[in-house]
Amino acid sequence: MEAIKQFELSKEYLESLQLGIEQGNVDFIRESLDGVNEADIAAILDELSLQESVYVLRLLENQLAADILIELDDVTLLKVLREIENSEIAAWIEMMDSDDGADILNLLSEKDREEVISDFQDKVKSEQVLELLRYEEDTAGGIMAKEFIRANKNWNVVQTINEIRRQAENVEKIYSIYVVDNRQQLMGRVSLKRIILAGADTKIEDIYDDEVISVPVHMDQEEVASVMRKYDLESVPVINAKNKLVGRITVDDILDVVQEEADEDIQAMSGISAQVDEYDSVYKLTKARLPWLMIGIIGGLLGAGFIGFFEAGLAKVTALAFFIPLITATGGNVGIQSSTLVVQSLANKSAFDDSLSRRFMKGLLVAIINGLVLASFVFGMVVLFYGNEVKFAMVISIALFCVVLLASFMGTFTPIVLDRFGINPALASGPFITTANDLIGLAVYFLVAMSLLSL
Amino acid sequence: MEAIKQFELSKEYLESLQLGIEQGNVDFIRESLDGVNEADIAAILDELSLQESVYVLRLLENQLAADILIELDDVTLLKVLREIENSEIAAWIEMMDSDDGADILNLLSEKDREEVISDFQDKVKSEQVLELLRYEEDTAGGIMAKEFIRANKNWNVVQTINEIRRQAENVEKIYSIYVVDNRQQLMGRVSLKRIILAGADTKIEDIYDDEVISVPVHMDQEEVASVMRKYDLESVPVINAKNKLVGRITVDDILDVVQEEADEDIQAMSGISAQVDEYDSVYKLTKARLPWLMIGIIGGLLGAGFIGFFEAGLAKVTALAFFIPLITATGGNVGIQSSTLVVQSLANKSAFDDSLSRRFMKGLLVAIINGLVLASFVFGMVVLFYGNEVKFAMVISIALFCVVLLASFMGTFTPIVLDRFGINPALASGPFITTANDLIGLAVYFLVAMSLLSL
Repeated sequence: MEAIKQFELSKEYLESLQLGIEQGNVDFIRESLDGVNEADIAAILDELSLQESVYVLRLLENQLAADILIELDDVTLLKVLREIENSEIAAWIEMMDSDDGADILNLLSEKDREEVISDFQDKVKSEQVLELLRYEEDTAGGIMAKEFIRANKNWNVVQTINEIRRQAENVEKIYSIYVVDNRQQLMGRVSLKRIILAGADTKIEDIYDDEVISVPVHMDQEEVASVMRKYDLESVPVINAKNKLVGRITVDDILDVVQEEADEDIQAMSGISAQVDEYDSVYKLTKARLPWLMIGIIGGLLGAGFIGFFEAGLAKVTALAFFIPLITATGGNVGIQSSTLVVQSLANKSAFDDSLSRRFMKGLLVAIINGLVLASFVFGMVVLFYGNEVKFAMVISIALFCVVLLASFMGTFTPIVLDRFGINPALASGPFITTANDLIGLAVYFLVAMSLLSL
Repeated sequence: MEAIKQFELSKEYLESLQLGIEQGNVDFIRESLDGVNEADIAAILDELSLQESVYVLRLLENQLAADILIELDDVTLLKVLREIENSEIAAWIEMMDSDDGADILNLLSEKDREEVISDFQDKVKSEQVLELLRYEEDTAGGIMAKEFIRANKNWNVVQTINEIRRQAENVEKIYSIYVVDNRQQLMGRVSLKRIILAGADTKIEDIYDDEVISVPVHMDQEEVASVMRKYDLESVPVINAKNKLVGRITVDDILDVVQEEADEDIQAMSGISAQVDEYDSVYKLTKARLPWLMIGIIGGLLGAGFIGFFEAGLAKVTALAFFIPLITATGGNVGIQSSTLVVQSLANKSAFDDSLSRRFMKGLLVAIINGLVLASFVFGMVVLFYGNEVKFAMVISIALFCVVLLASFMGTFTPIVLDRFGINPALASGPFITTANDLIGLAVYFLVAMSLLSL
């Protein structure tokens, strides 16, 4: 027998499944999906029509249906939730881990949520899910689960194993067993490995590790991710203000957090205002993209007004217009480079940051070197190819040098200021700062040109 | 007793430690660092001078020094490696997991590497590390470790627990026990939980899960990350072409992969050519930033030449120059938005992608709507504020509309083409495509203007 590897979804498989659904061939469908991983079944359902997906989900056991549900992509999931009865949702949520159940409830309208809650049969699970609803979605409380193994420090190994047996069905992956005192305060952790290797009557007290890293329930999920990364944790206990153990966060959820935050930053940088992807509707895509484009347009119109201000000079030296794109593009490129570096260093804070003034001096030095190299190059090229007089080449180079300096300054400080005000600093690499840089670049260019050329 | 939470590094602590080092107060130093997590000690060493760091590392036990070493940031690590003796490096590597040891060896010069290898005492560990050196760094083989628990399917639970005991020191975190047959072929996995709950003479054969997901040793690390994310795995076995179990990848390494890949994409988007951060030297920072700035400059010079081609027309209608930044900026913004969406959908491939033609049609539709809205707005504003004749406003709007369509087209197809050729598609959102878009925008603008205004 061979180990089962990743499932490859073929068009033929999908078509045969659709035929089975059309014919209502229940046995065939169940057999086709037997042994297929829930994430793979979810990927199959994403490809089926809504009616077909719901039909398949209802054929499966509640546990499997619940496992599949949480793997569906958001668009399909929302459609499915709207299609099925609230009593079915309740039954499936009861099969989920509490954090996944809370996520599903958060997707429902208030009315549906109330109905689903009133349909719950399993009292423990419903209390756990309801507790999780109280926390902000982006905090430790919002991503933690209530399913974990807790051992009292006075227990021995046998008692702990009995607890594991009791919870075996609820807690799929154990990682660590958290050790608490009689007041449920977190004292430490003990690994399963240690439990296995210890004698049956060994007291937990004698084998647990009291150097456990925990996170407070209100910590931002991004910070939780950075703690787990720093300390290489596969799970982390969550405590409330009174040091009471209230939940556990596992690394698979953190993997999603890291990816989401990165995607968000990239979208912020590219001027897409909502979390969208290529598969969203034309309406949603347009709505996410238009606002920033509009800001760019308004910047462009302001720029046009600004250049218009120097119309007389421009009419005398038309060649000034030639270098407008060079100036604005370089300003933009320098600004984005600077802000990206700052954003990434903000994200990976070291214990002691370089002081602001040292960073500023270093940024200035890099900008001066880059500015000098680029300005000299442009000076040479303008003299060489455009046959203009040396003074004109000087104007372009000096303006370019000033723009590099200013854009670097803006690019460095905008994200720092945004971060201080609690705004995502990645926005500073986006269209807003690019637009501002364009305007500043134009201003510098024309002011330098007008004064040096005495126009 | 209270559970130890995250360590907060204070300036006072650091200063007292530095004083202790100066005075050579070994006891004080050891006591100060007692119970501090290795990641926190590494953060402390990052703040100390090289001599101080090496002094502290040499005071500590080999195991702790090794744990700290792998947590140091790259710059400090390289300096430390250059400072200490190869025999010390060998002793520390022997205390590490094989994957971390291989990473350290990869940082050394060929000569130093040979010396370190010849200094190894532990034959098993050195064979493991040497095997790992054979694989490409960015593949499953390059990030896997040789430390994991393997059980023969004919064993019973007691035999398996004995194996765990035998390996207890080597394998810190167990996650799953991988089940193999007599030819070392991967058959499946069994969780520690199941081992604990099973009777002592239960055969592994009867309790293992044969639906294990594995990855081939040559799989790209980014793909490994996406498999682990999709299936919510905390560890994944790595197999060679003969289905033989050769290693294990744990999720903490994958967390780093996800973060690195995201940072790389963001740097590619912002025109920074090497993996640098704000703390690197001025020289390194300049070198990473200058190439893309230079490409932007060359694009700007080409643009200048291009506009110069229309000098006669521009001299007649100077106002054409006013809208150059509007055109180039909008082209850039649209291009970046489009390419970002494509890059992200390439990264999160669904089983069946929308066909290229459907994506193209959708992108076209979004571009037409955005283009119409923006062009109408600009038309109105130009007529209203700039008091120009309607025909001139028409020229600007039509050119803008064409630029939006073209930039959207370029932004969509460049990353797809790059991806086909195995180049990181995130580069398509970077300065190269922005520069190309600027030139295309200028061309469209002036061609439309010249023909409509008959200049």
